[in-house]
Amino acid sequence: MKREKCDLVIKGAQIFNVFTGQTEEGDIAVADGKIVAIGRGYEGKRVYDAKGYTAIPGLIDAHIHVESSLLSPEEFASLACVHGTTGIVADPHEIVNVCGIEGAEYMKEAFSKLRVGKVCPLDVYLQLPSCVPATPFETSGAVIDGTETERELERDLFYGLGEMMNYPAVLAGEEDAMRKLSAAKTLGKIVDGHAPSLTGDELNAYLCAEIKTDHEPFSVEECREKVARGMYIQLRNGSSAHNIVENVKAMDEFNFRRFILCSDDKNAPDLSRNGHLDDALRKLISLGVPAKYAVVCATLNTAECYGMKGRGALAPSYCADVVLVNNLSEFRVHAVFKDGEQVAENGKVLFSHEKRYLTDAVKSTVRMKDVTPDSFKIDIPSGKALAMYVRPRVLVTEKETVSVRCEGGDVCLENTDLVKLAVIERHFASGNIGLALVRGYGLKGGAIGVSVAHDSHNLVVMGDNNADMARVARLLKEAGGGMVAVCNGKEDVFPLDIAGLMSSAPAEEVIARAAEIGETARRMGVKEDYEPFMTLVFLSLAVIPKIRLTDRGLFDVEKFAFADLEIKG
Amino acid sequence: MKREKCDLVIKGAQIFNVFTGQTEEGDIAVADGKIVAIGRGYEGKRVYDAKGYTAIPGLIDAHIHVESSLLSPEEFASLACVHGTTGIVADPHEIVNVCGIEGAEYMKEAFSKLRVGKVCPLDVYLQLPSCVPATPFETSGAVIDGTETERELERDLFYGLGEMMNYPAVLAGEEDAMRKLSAAKTLGKIVDGHAPSLTGDELNAYLCAEIKTDHEPFSVEECREKVARGMYIQLRNGSSAHNIVENVKAMDEFNFRRFILCSDDKNAPDLSRNGHLDDALRKLISLGVPAKYAVVCATLNTAECYGMKGRGALAPSYCADVVLVNNLSEFRVHAVFKDGEQVAENGKVLFSHEKRYLTDAVKSTVRMKDVTPDSFKIDIPSGKALAMYVRPRVLVTEKETVSVRCEGGDVCLENTDLVKLAVIERHFASGNIGLALVRGYGLKGGAIGVSVAHDSHNLVVMGDNNADMARVARLLKEAGGGMVAVCNGKEDVFPLDIAGLMSSAPAEEVIARAAEIGETARRMGVKEDYEPFMTLVFLSLAVIPKIRLTDRGLFDVEKFAFADLEIKG
Repeated sequence: MKREKCDLVIKGAQIFNVFTGQTEEGDIAVADGKIVAIGRGYEGKRVYDAKGYTAIPGLIDAHIHVESSLLSPEEFASLACVHGTTGIVADPHEIVNVCGIEGAEYMKEAFSKLRVGKVCPLDVYLQLPSCVPATPFETSGAVIDGTETERELERDLFYGLGEMMNYPAVLAGEEDAMRKLSAAKTLGKIVDGHAPSLTGDELNAYLCAEIKTDHEPFSVEECREKVARGMYIQLRNGSSAHNIVENVKAMDEFNFRRFILCSDDKNAPDLSRNGHLDDALRKLISLGVPAKYAVVCATLNTAECYGMKGRGALAPSYCADVVLVNNLSEFRVHAVFKDGEQVAENGKVLFSHEKRYLTDAVKSTVRMKDVTPDSFKIDIPSGKALAMYVRPRVLVTEKETVSVRCEGGDVCLENTDLVKLAVIERHFASGNIGLALVRGYGLKGGAIGVSVAHDSHNLVVMGDNNADMARVARLLKEAGGGMVAVCNGKEDVFPLDIAGLMSSAPAEEVIARAAEIGETARRMGVKEDYEPFMTLVFLSLAVIPKIRLTDRGLFDVEKFAFADLEIKG
Repeated sequence: MKREKCDLVIKGAQIFNVFTGQTEEGDIAVADGKIVAIGRGYEGKRVYDAKGYTAIPGLIDAHIHVESSLLSPEEFASLACVHGTTGIVADPHEIVNVCGIEGAEYMKEAFSKLRVGKVCPLDVYLQLPSCVPATPFETSGAVIDGTETERELERDLFYGLGEMMNYPAVLAGEEDAMRKLSAAKTLGKIVDGHAPSLTGDELNAYLCAEIKTDHEPFSVEECREKVARGMYIQLRNGSSAHNIVENVKAMDEFNFRRFILCSDDKNAPDLSRNGHLDDALRKLISLGVPAKYAVVCATLNTAECYGMKGRGALAPSYCADVVLVNNLSEFRVHAVFKDGEQVAENGKVLFSHEKRYLTDAVKSTVRMKDVTPDSFKIDIPSGKALAMYVRPRVLVTEKETVSVRCEGGDVCLENTDLVKLAVIERHFASGNIGLALVRGYGLKGGAIGVSVAHDSHNLVVMGDNNADMARVARLLKEAGGGMVAVCNGKEDVFPLDIAGLMSSAPAEEVIARAAEIGETARRMGVKEDYEPFMTLVFLSLAVIPKIRLTDRGLFDVEKFAFADLEIKG
């Protein structure tokens, strides 16, 4: 009412209105962190000249696993904020599979401690992971069953239930899954979905569980069907998964309110180089989506889907989460305000993010029973083995029968196109080691290993000799996790000291070190078709066809059963 | 998953999809009151052949004062249900102004007792009236202040806070109004708005109170501004207020998600003859709105605005509220299902609505201090009086100065165009009587009176002689409220025995009796420009310009102060 000065006036911006799809020039008046008026002639204790810029609401990522950035929450927040992100629905699926609930508590706390004035620069809506472990065929660091889910979901810590990947359990009405879903329902908390290729009767049944979102559709038809059945589609602009390109074709002027944006997995170089949701907006524009739809998908739609009060719009009573961009086609972020505080300008955050919050629960998480070179011996008396072949540039693997020669109870790898793969249990020092043979990866003269390995994050080590593989495993243990390469006596260790998943180093360092160690592995002969470490990370994910390796052995995904490495008879 | 038979399959309908705007032929499978699948080939314990019909979600009225129908909740529900209504946001503003909270409790309970199987045929989302009394210039039956609002709003009984009509109090930040609003905010309950002509700074300020809806815009520009500032527009298709015609012009393909439908006030003949929201849908179609937008405004949009879980769509996990219509242009309702139970077919409800739930609180509510003919004496020694003139067909009144002749301390009405108007306090038998002169109404040879009188519902009596006016008042008291006409010794009484606002008679009888007594009044000379009783009902509403009469006297709305009937000097 102009009776007194506002705290802040963002003056003279082109203000994009998510309700009308139109832009109006004017001021955004802010008091107590809230927008109190859109109009003209407001006076403020602080005034920000926004002439020439377009104001859009703070961008909200509907689904992201922060851990996949390899960055600490502090560094992730700083990269996200400069790109206009003011909210994320974070599913700490990875860290909870390692550290249990304490992993989620750590994430929340680390984000919460960031401050600009009294304001936290990023809203983090934490989902309780629904699938810990992801499958019963591997050993994860924690088990969160229906009973624990009922208890944990009651806490304010968790906004909802994370993506329900175990759709077979939902369709089968398995008791434990039902308890989780029914806890969410009772508490009125949202449940995220994950239902690749689910359509028809199965989709109907899955949705009876009141699962609300999906980021997995593979085709326009699947996408349209899911919208028709009431799902929100999370258009995914991840670092490797880009079904946004296909799925956006299912969006039209009528149904667009059911489309929201997500990253799912976004790595640090991608975040740093291309951006976050601003990158997704640019992609939508390049795919022919009018700006007014694109922006609403990243703001109002997400807020409505998740019931985020006071988010997603520039209007009175809404939180003053405002992003100034150069225009509605390039979305170059100039300044970002969160709850009325400026948090970023021209690619620089205005808050300190150097200090790391760390708890014991996420430190020194690699608890591995000691290994020796002999631990990696593979004896194939029959001379015939089931090998794994990774299809280039996709995560699908093929089963192949290979002839091998054994000597002293171990496979000879010389003059073959084979390497050994080991998945070593690292949560309880059980001594579990799964062993396999991989054809065509190209690695020679040493071993590489990583402690990020979806979804249980055991140690994955690949090599052409047992001694180097054992050395890699030990180095991973010592570093508390990370990426390791050992070649001709040279050792390269890039620690991921937070739960073996993330680095506490600054983002630039993480990006540089990840690139360097990748190059090291590449020099060891890893073919161009593969990302040396990142391909490794998925070789233990027992839900992707056709064959995987967990700490408990070789797993035939099509038969949904363990398989023998040796082919007898 | 077709593992077992559903409870009900609605087979072969053209199913309208609110998410896509498209229609697909198929089955709606229902179990436990919920839709479990949309598709084909489902088997059910019951099967309803819906071939040739179009299925839409149950219609939801975003704002209605049920009392204005003059019908009991049971009869209202029966009329609404046959027209495809499965939910109403009911603001019991009238009955609470008479009976206090017990009036709201009565309404809820009366609706709740209706049953088809285990199902209640109508969802009633009851709003706690925010303005009881509506103004401080009249005596209502109850006062609900901020403290009581805080207490009452906590109850499950109330879904939200009813239309905040007292916008000057909101703009002024008056403490009592703030307490009400802040109670709703704390509890996360929705607040309905009522802000005629509010724009610019005032609108910004009003919306800072997180008021979400409005049904009062007068113009396209006002409507567009309100949408831009984040309000939901309730397109109103009431019996007398039809701003739907103007306001719908503000709706476009982008912003339509912020438009919902309401009736506000809908009388029984209108409900019976024209329908309820189906009538509004036909009106939208006739105004050029494509059916896919119209239906979504009456279903999904309303459910989203009010956060009604599982309502507003035909999709798995949604409540099986299904309306079968002949097509998407005429919307002739063939059958209605609520929570999977059929509640209506071809204009007939399939549930018993004859029994009345009544509580002491709503019976015998006319507590009037006895009146005599002398109570209506108006002495104007100066011979000059301030009279009221009702402008034809609108509710606005004009102030006029008239010359009068007095005899024995009372105005002589013979050979004038004047009648007397009395508003008699009827809640506490205080003896308050406000008296006025009305010009040009046309009533001769008796008196008429009514106990419905917005918003405090005192008795309004009009007549050309004191004796008949007194008789009318006494008859109203005896009947516990209603409409009464006394003319040449003939008495016609149509009781509104529920709080003096509604009749416990069947709908057809209410419609017939209201028409008859209207005709009686018409025969007494009431001009065609006025609805004899319904015009009367608004003459004490102290917020509509320019002059009104309350139990405390003549009120100048423009000066916002009481006025003298006699003009001196």
